[in-house]
Amino acid sequence: MFEFDLEKQHAHARAGVFHTPHGDLLTPVFAPVGTAATVKALTPAQLCELGASLVLSNTYHLYLRPGDELVRDLGGLHAFMRWPGPMLTDSGGFQVFSLSQTRRIDPEGVNFKSHIDGSLHRFTPEKSIAIQENLGADIIMAFDECPPPLDRAYNEASLELTHAWAARCLAAKTRADQALFGIVQGGVFPDLRAQSARYLAGLGFPGFGIGGLAVGESKAEMHAMIEIMDAELPPDRPRYLMGVGSPEDLVSAVRRGVDMFDCVLPTRLARNHAALTRTGRLNLRNAVFARDSRPVEPGCACYCCANFTRAYVRHLAASDEILGAVLLSIHNVHLLLSITREMRAAILAGTFDAYADEFLANYPVKIKDEV
Amino acid sequence: MFEFDLEKQHAHARAGVFHTPHGDLLTPVFAPVGTAATVKALTPAQLCELGASLVLSNTYHLYLRPGDELVRDLGGLHAFMRWPGPMLTDSGGFQVFSLSQTRRIDPEGVNFKSHIDGSLHRFTPEKSIAIQENLGADIIMAFDECPPPLDRAYNEASLELTHAWAARCLAAKTRADQALFGIVQGGVFPDLRAQSARYLAGLGFPGFGIGGLAVGESKAEMHAMIEIMDAELPPDRPRYLMGVGSPEDLVSAVRRGVDMFDCVLPTRLARNHAALTRTGRLNLRNAVFARDSRPVEPGCACYCCANFTRAYVRHLAASDEILGAVLLSIHNVHLLLSITREMRAAILAGTFDAYADEFLANYPVKIKDEV
Repeated sequence: MFEFDLEKQHAHARAGVFHTPHGDLLTPVFAPVGTAATVKALTPAQLCELGASLVLSNTYHLYLRPGDELVRDLGGLHAFMRWPGPMLTDSGGFQVFSLSQTRRIDPEGVNFKSHIDGSLHRFTPEKSIAIQENLGADIIMAFDECPPPLDRAYNEASLELTHAWAARCLAAKTRADQALFGIVQGGVFPDLRAQSARYLAGLGFPGFGIGGLAVGESKAEMHAMIEIMDAELPPDRPRYLMGVGSPEDLVSAVRRGVDMFDCVLPTRLARNHAALTRTGRLNLRNAVFARDSRPVEPGCACYCCANFTRAYVRHLAASDEILGAVLLSIHNVHLLLSITREMRAAILAGTFDAYADEFLANYPVKIKDEV
Repeated sequence: MFEFDLEKQHAHARAGVFHTPHGDLLTPVFAPVGTAATVKALTPAQLCELGASLVLSNTYHLYLRPGDELVRDLGGLHAFMRWPGPMLTDSGGFQVFSLSQTRRIDPEGVNFKSHIDGSLHRFTPEKSIAIQENLGADIIMAFDECPPPLDRAYNEASLELTHAWAARCLAAKTRADQALFGIVQGGVFPDLRAQSARYLAGLGFPGFGIGGLAVGESKAEMHAMIEIMDAELPPDRPRYLMGVGSPEDLVSAVRRGVDMFDCVLPTRLARNHAALTRTGRLNLRNAVFARDSRPVEPGCACYCCANFTRAYVRHLAASDEILGAVLLSIHNVHLLLSITREMRAAILAGTFDAYADEFLANYPVKIKDEV
């Protein structure tokens, strides 16, 4: 269990299989995010039909509502939300540092106020692991601090904390049917990133999150940090670039040795009436689509594009109909899953570089229609 | 086309087949409502899986947004919303009289303001038919006035208007692939109802809407009016009780000779976190369900009940997750479709009276948990 079989490498791009209690993950893999134990607007049946293999859910959200002990008592997250495949929970760290109010960090943990009702809570590495054991995902994440990426002094101090917490998470873990991944931090500083990767690799984690990226640094900085991960992390363990999920970032990161991704982008954009496509984004609320009889993305095989016109999706968006969010969520998730499947096939076929070159050449440097 | 084959009658309850260009309707039939060309929160694929046969959409809403000419230019309502089966559009009358502001009625038609943007519009019988021809449903409805049901003088005058408009609708109709139904009015007054049924039957409509009920009158009054319809309307034409859709009303009305129904109830309740069941309503936002591991309705075979617990649906409701509305819409529509299928089977088997007695005996007189 939890072995990673590296099947084929094409330059730095990797195709592999990660074995979990709820099935094999074929990498590269993209995980749709089910923040509150639901990938927003989609049924598990629709996710299965889309070919999703890994679903992420959020420790912070589920701890607050409905409560991790309730989820445990109802059979764990797989049973609760009826997701039959592999699942991953994050540690709650990122949300504590981004969503909650009035957090206070000390060496032992973090005090924070709920973003829902202002109630006071405390997470420690041990608490995060206990919650994640109650939730019962196949892959769980170490509790880390998420520092501002550009502040060197802050990152130096934070790294010590994150490393100490990683060791405590390992020590606190009791379930054999869950893989605990460490999370590499270090901001945009190559030496800190390398130091973090080496330290966490030494602790023997079966996989590694790459944290603290896509939070304000430049694309060049993000790419440089990923390249250090490829050089420093053990090749026989999966690398998971956390919170990243635009089409171009997926391709650029796989090219640099990343295996796993998650992001709210496809479902969040969908609820804001935006479609991801291979040539940029479309805001389907735009009146220009009112009589457009083409599918959202011509050539796309998803349920939305196989059946409906831009004019219809635009009408749903203009009318704030739930079905608009459903159809665009289907399309956007389908696109990201398709891209990861295509990348995997290209790596296995030895044609990844050509695939990536062509993909990125068609992808606009600048997003044409931000929502 | 548009023949109604009355297959079997059990006392006053009827099982039949109504033939339309997009397929046969097996009656009794319940139509989920797709107000704005979408049955809220459900995909056409989910509706097909539920076994829906007839879907209703609203002339008033579609005329205002996205516009009936746009729908026509995109191939009509079936193509626009990708519903492969029979469709019905109402005339816009009910919405003009219930939703819009500052309406002014004259013998020729009605002036009204859009509830969306306050813009000024005018519907006449001819305009309603022209819009419904642009939309292209299989069954279209005559433009009628919807009077307050308890005001005798108002209903007497209104009936003349509705009858004159019905004749004008027939005269205005040009498409042979659409069946135009007349709408019986007359409030709670037996003689007016009988007069309206006889007059409209004389005009030769292929089917009849029963309008102006379930709008404030008592159940006894509603039942009495339906019994008059059964006595006065030609037996070889379908009777469609408009806007009615609670489980007990379906059973009570089929027992009195009604063949068709539509109602927003199942999908509207679902978006308000309420489940219809055979023994009353449940408000799934209620904390009492927080740890309830039973399905929403034990014994129900729908996707929601076959897979999820009340605890999970309650969590979705408490978190305002779209999936909560989706799952409860599936359950509620499934229940009403199941009841109509069961009634049809019971009529064909000659056991309808026993079925209806048992159903109504289990159904609470008072709804336990109104939303």
